[in-house]
Amino acid sequence: MNTFGTLFRITSFGESHGPGIGVVVDGCPAGLDLEPFDIQHFLDRRRPGQNLYTSPRKEADTVSILSGVFQGKTVGSPIALWIVNENQNSEDYNPISQIFRPSHGDYSYFLKHGVAPLPGGGRLSARETLTRVAAGAIAKKVLEKCSKLSLLAYVERVGSIQLEHSISMPCPELDAVEASPVRCPDPLISAQMETLILETKAAGDSLGGAIVCRAQNLGQGWGEPVFDKLQADLAKAMLSLPAAKSFEIGSGLAGTYLKGSEHNDTFINLDGKIRTQSNHSGGVQGGISNGEELYFRVGFKAPSSIQKHQETVNLEGQPIGLSIQGRHDPCVLPRAVPIVEAMAYLVLVDHFLRQEAYRHLEL
Amino acid sequence: MNTFGTLFRITSFGESHGPGIGVVVDGCPAGLDLEPFDIQHFLDRRRPGQNLYTSPRKEADTVSILSGVFQGKTVGSPIALWIVNENQNSEDYNPISQIFRPSHGDYSYFLKHGVAPLPGGGRLSARETLTRVAAGAIAKKVLEKCSKLSLLAYVERVGSIQLEHSISMPCPELDAVEASPVRCPDPLISAQMETLILETKAAGDSLGGAIVCRAQNLGQGWGEPVFDKLQADLAKAMLSLPAAKSFEIGSGLAGTYLKGSEHNDTFINLDGKIRTQSNHSGGVQGGISNGEELYFRVGFKAPSSIQKHQETVNLEGQPIGLSIQGRHDPCVLPRAVPIVEAMAYLVLVDHFLRQEAYRHLEL
Amino acid sequence: MNTFGTLFRITSFGESHGPGIGVVVDGCPAGLDLEPFDIQHFLDRRRPGQNLYTSPRKEADTVSILSGVFQGKTVGSPIALWIVNENQNSEDYNPISQIFRPSHGDYSYFLKHGVAPLPGGGRLSARETLTRVAAGAIAKKVLEKCSKLSLLAYVERVGSIQLEHSISMPCPELDAVEASPVRCPDPLISAQMETLILETKAAGDSLGGAIVCRAQNLGQGWGEPVFDKLQADLAKAMLSLPAAKSFEIGSGLAGTYLKGSEHNDTFINLDGKIRTQSNHSGGVQGGISNGEELYFRVGFKAPSSIQKHQETVNLEGQPIGLSIQGRHDPCVLPRAVPIVEAMAYLVLVDHFLRQEAYRHLEL
Amino acid sequence: MNTFGTLFRITSFGESHGPGIGVVVDGCPAGLDLEPFDIQHFLDRRRPGQNLYTSPRKEADTVSILSGVFQGKTVGSPIALWIVNENQNSEDYNPISQIFRPSHGDYSYFLKHGVAPLPGGGRLSARETLTRVAAGAIAKKVLEKCSKLSLLAYVERVGSIQLEHSISMPCPELDAVEASPVRCPDPLISAQMETLILETKAAGDSLGGAIVCRAQNLGQGWGEPVFDKLQADLAKAMLSLPAAKSFEIGSGLAGTYLKGSEHNDTFINLDGKIRTQSNHSGGVQGGISNGEELYFRVGFKAPSSIQKHQETVNLEGQPIGLSIQGRHDPCVLPRAVPIVEAMAYLVLVDHFLRQEAYRHLEL
Repeated sequence: MNTFGTLFRITSFGESHGPGIGVVVDGCPAGLDLEPFDIQHFLDRRRPGQNLYTSPRKEADTVSILSGVFQGKTVGSPIALWIVNENQNSEDYNPISQIFRPSHGDYSYFLKHGVAPLPGGGRLSARETLTRVAAGAIAKKVLEKCSKLSLLAYVERVGSIQLEHSISMPCPELDAVEASPVRCPDPLISAQMETLILETKAAGDSLGGAIVCRAQNLGQGWGEPVFDKLQADLAKAMLSLPAAKSFEIGSGLAGTYLKGSEHNDTFINLDGKIRTQSNHSGGVQGGISNGEELYFRVGFKAPSSIQKHQETVNLEGQPIGLSIQGRHDPCVLPRAVPIVEAMAYLVLVDHFLRQEAYRHLEL
Repeated sequence: MNTFGTLFRITSFGESHGPGIGVVVDGCPAGLDLEPFDIQHFLDRRRPGQNLYTSPRKEADTVSILSGVFQGKTVGSPIALWIVNENQNSEDYNPISQIFRPSHGDYSYFLKHGVAPLPGGGRLSARETLTRVAAGAIAKKVLEKCSKLSLLAYVERVGSIQLEHSISMPCPELDAVEASPVRCPDPLISAQMETLILETKAAGDSLGGAIVCRAQNLGQGWGEPVFDKLQADLAKAMLSLPAAKSFEIGSGLAGTYLKGSEHNDTFINLDGKIRTQSNHSGGVQGGISNGEELYFRVGFKAPSSIQKHQETVNLEGQPIGLSIQGRHDPCVLPRAVPIVEAMAYLVLVDHFLRQEAYRHLEL
Repeated sequence: MNTFGTLFRITSFGESHGPGIGVVVDGCPAGLDLEPFDIQHFLDRRRPGQNLYTSPRKEADTVSILSGVFQGKTVGSPIALWIVNENQNSEDYNPISQIFRPSHGDYSYFLKHGVAPLPGGGRLSARETLTRVAAGAIAKKVLEKCSKLSLLAYVERVGSIQLEHSISMPCPELDAVEASPVRCPDPLISAQMETLILETKAAGDSLGGAIVCRAQNLGQGWGEPVFDKLQADLAKAMLSLPAAKSFEIGSGLAGTYLKGSEHNDTFINLDGKIRTQSNHSGGVQGGISNGEELYFRVGFKAPSSIQKHQETVNLEGQPIGLSIQGRHDPCVLPRAVPIVEAMAYLVLVDHFLRQEAYRHLEL
Repeated sequence: MNTFGTLFRITSFGESHGPGIGVVVDGCPAGLDLEPFDIQHFLDRRRPGQNLYTSPRKEADTVSILSGVFQGKTVGSPIALWIVNENQNSEDYNPISQIFRPSHGDYSYFLKHGVAPLPGGGRLSARETLTRVAAGAIAKKVLEKCSKLSLLAYVERVGSIQLEHSISMPCPELDAVEASPVRCPDPLISAQMETLILETKAAGDSLGGAIVCRAQNLGQGWGEPVFDKLQADLAKAMLSLPAAKSFEIGSGLAGTYLKGSEHNDTFINLDGKIRTQSNHSGGVQGGISNGEELYFRVGFKAPSSIQKHQETVNLEGQPIGLSIQGRHDPCVLPRAVPIVEAMAYLVLVDHFLRQEAYRHLEL
């Protein structure tokens, strides 16, 4: 279904070929200051056409608030957000409308619904992620108002260019991330990534990579011990993103090479507070946040839409050559940063509220 | 919550310190032949005490069917399964009952619920996974009866001992997997893993690794295009397992190093059927199964319970030394194989039924 | 939350004071012919300003399809519908904006969310029911395409003017219902109702009554035996309507006066088909449809908004006199008919799809 | 499905022909004192064989707590409750096992699941309501600990013998209700009901009637304004009970005969508190509790199982005579009182927790 979350719940709609994209945010507390700007600001970080490293499409992606807000404050009812599809250059898409693009979802969607590839990918268009960012902006506001959470994502790797050991360094500032056109906080590594992206783009090809997301001052006790472990819900959220291939919580894949004695996080008493000396757990133990830094990594594949010539088949199963001329991203990583943040906020605000339901009971 | 699934839905209960562990399986079709043996057979693969490489605990883990079956057939009502905790050697656990074991969930559970560490980990005990395997056995039966699905998991890596390129080889037979005491289908690699586990166990330490799960003849059109992508629900299922640290769909992390032109799966017409030439997608495109082999990898950390001396704190926050003497697994991977399979079956049967709701409509 | 349904699921948003009202319909099968007209036609039956017996507000309530439809057919993605609030005569509402209107939800909403009464009732406005009718129109189309269901509601009673024994008569035709300005299929009773409504309206007062809903050719086996009994989900749907006070399935309240021997529906074999001789069960036994006519009754109270002088308090708790001058309905019954139908369609289509998920399995 | 509730969620299982009946209660706060006695006490009120007016079956219905409790306190994990089916006198049921009993769910269950009538009704047995009462006992404890709620149900009518105007009288004490063998707090009316039941029973027949449920000191702000109105969820809960035919909130059906000016509840300022002068709303306005007394009425039909000769058909559709000899209730009303209370507690505790999630936020 197109709904995500238990108490803070979003329902997404809209396709690339239609008039616009929207999302209904249900379960947002009443009394929150909310202006379109709060959402727009976050959306703008996802916008295409920001620089040479992203799709040259120019779309303002201006958000409207259709409901749930009165005189600048939320009123407890569902908040519907709407973003017009301004730049529907259907000619970009037209010639390929009966062709199954390699590694796109056109064919499997056809198998499921019997629907031929829709212009621009229809519901499978990455424009769908706009709704996640818009809803995530509200989740972010709630969490920042009601908890001390501070959360940030950045690009750790593009192709094989990698910011090494970034987790063992202090979490970068947002400014450092945003100063990089590819959202890698280290200027030298960023420059290498930029070069690689431009070269690959020039060759009509595309690149993958990895994003790290880190959160400080998470509330303690968020998440549940069995199916709804915090990392389980984060994993679902991240693997629901287009092009996502992998999810790692805390020490992740590298951590699975360590012995128990190396990996275990020793509990210590630090000025009267129980803390862990290391944090291979990534802030989650038994599925529940322990107050240490939450961090996880998401791997994204190279975009499937490339200019390079490819072989494929059309709706009739006939072989056909294809060179995708649309205005596509040579690498989704930079623009995926706010999307990863948004999904993390959505998971966290839901677990925050679920925990709130019990936190104040006196038994 | 302790419920998982939409149409085929399981609700799990029970703790290590209590009389037993159980699960309610709701949404199973009526008319399915179901004997305790069907479930027991699958549970036995998870049982401890199988060999030197697993915990020496001896627990029969005998399952009883409490409801939902009449004269050997399901009747459409919820199937409750119950497994008695036979071997509750509470003395094993007693001395550490007020101590937060490193990298266990005792402390975060305490933060969430205000409950001191329960004997044997309470709800956080890995015995909880019994319920997943028991329920998964039913899901497996439904899928094998109603679809042509064939699914198998095996250990790909223990510590740094790895079965290389296993995905590009044909999927192994169940017999080959089960012939290995560590569930690695390659006898030579298996032997190396066995040696490593015994050495590590002797040193009072533990090991992590990775499991691969592969499914052939999946129905086409399972999964949904946005939040409930097949890989998203699999990721949640896998990251909800104790000790799971990473999830990769298809080409996974390695795939994110490839260029688009290298990673894209070319569509071809093979004897009138649309297929893909490569399968980096792992059988899922746009969140929906395309009929190719589904495969994914799960990384598990080394068990936190080790005999080696560790420092930690107790309930009062006082530093205290700890050497865990319980009968723990030096490596969870071999026993995690049926658990991974079970969770995969549960995700797949749910999406199968969700797709069935629409597949026969004539519009 | 603002979401209703399991597989066929609607999410509603919008307030009377905002730009419009909308609904997202998720889980609609792909390939259904759907034009705005299909929805508009149903919405028009709910429209105010139809005649003397309803609110004189003139609102076109024109629906737009924002997503989920391509070239006149549904594509399997969520269908968002949007209706602009054209006639926002905020002056009608202004003077009472700080007053708790008697028997309105202003005060309890304030208790819940801390939000002062919103112009026009905000989310509590009966305009919210527009979204139910719009979504119900799609549910109706699905059911009429995929099953043989035929469903109809009509006004059985206004005040004390009642169409007696209507259930024991054949179900009226839609034309007969629509021919009556108050949607009572009997012209004589209708005329009496009309007179009563006009008299009551002239006195600045309002009237309640009852609606009967009947469905023929319901599929067999819809509904579930315990919590999700068909009548339970219908009861929830109906009691979620503004002003609804009572729900009766089949013989209803009157049936509870009968003895078992009088109330039991004898099974008979009618030309090889198992049928019931009487139908006090209203087509549902053990929560599951048995193929007989489904019928139920919903009681609605008189609208709370009346012109007559009333005493109440304002936001500060001070006593204040009130005469509500807005353009309100003297009796909601006539306009509630399509709303009752819509909610019934929504419940039925969801149970239809839930049953479809199992109906074709071969075990 | 067999799950009910959002945050406080129960999952029920078990059939009359199986070893027992059980329920899993998820979402119960940790730290609640809970002994089997707390649940048993409530269950005993539902037990058959209490007196001449109920089924003579003797079943201890002793509850066991299988999980979720440690040393007399809940620990935040799911609480599984289990009640053995002691008195499985399958011979009572045997001769009718291939017969569709009139107005039972045997036939519709058969249509849905293809399962022939199970001994004792299988999942459709009223023993299923044991699980509701057991779970409701826990909900009751949570609400009584965490809020000031006090709730009570009683029999208002049996056949045509009615306790008139009981709502306008102060709510009776539990002792007065329990002093009556038919749970009608007025001794004179009770005596008439008793006589009627005995006479009807002697004639091999059965009786219906109505139960009123009333709650004082409900928290304010429980319930939601659109689909999850408090009365909507109560209506679903009540209509999900076997034999329930009608639900009325507040003034109910009688209230729909009143004019708006008669029915509206005037707001007044009573010693600085906003109250309503009348309470036709039954404590709920706009779907949300306003702090006034919550009251509703549920109508139950006469039990379908009667000794009187009836005509019906068997599995092959052949006509067959039937006289049900089992030990059945001549009137379910007395034993339905604790069941109605239990379902009300379950609805209320869920909405209580849902409201708690937001009540303490500082925005």
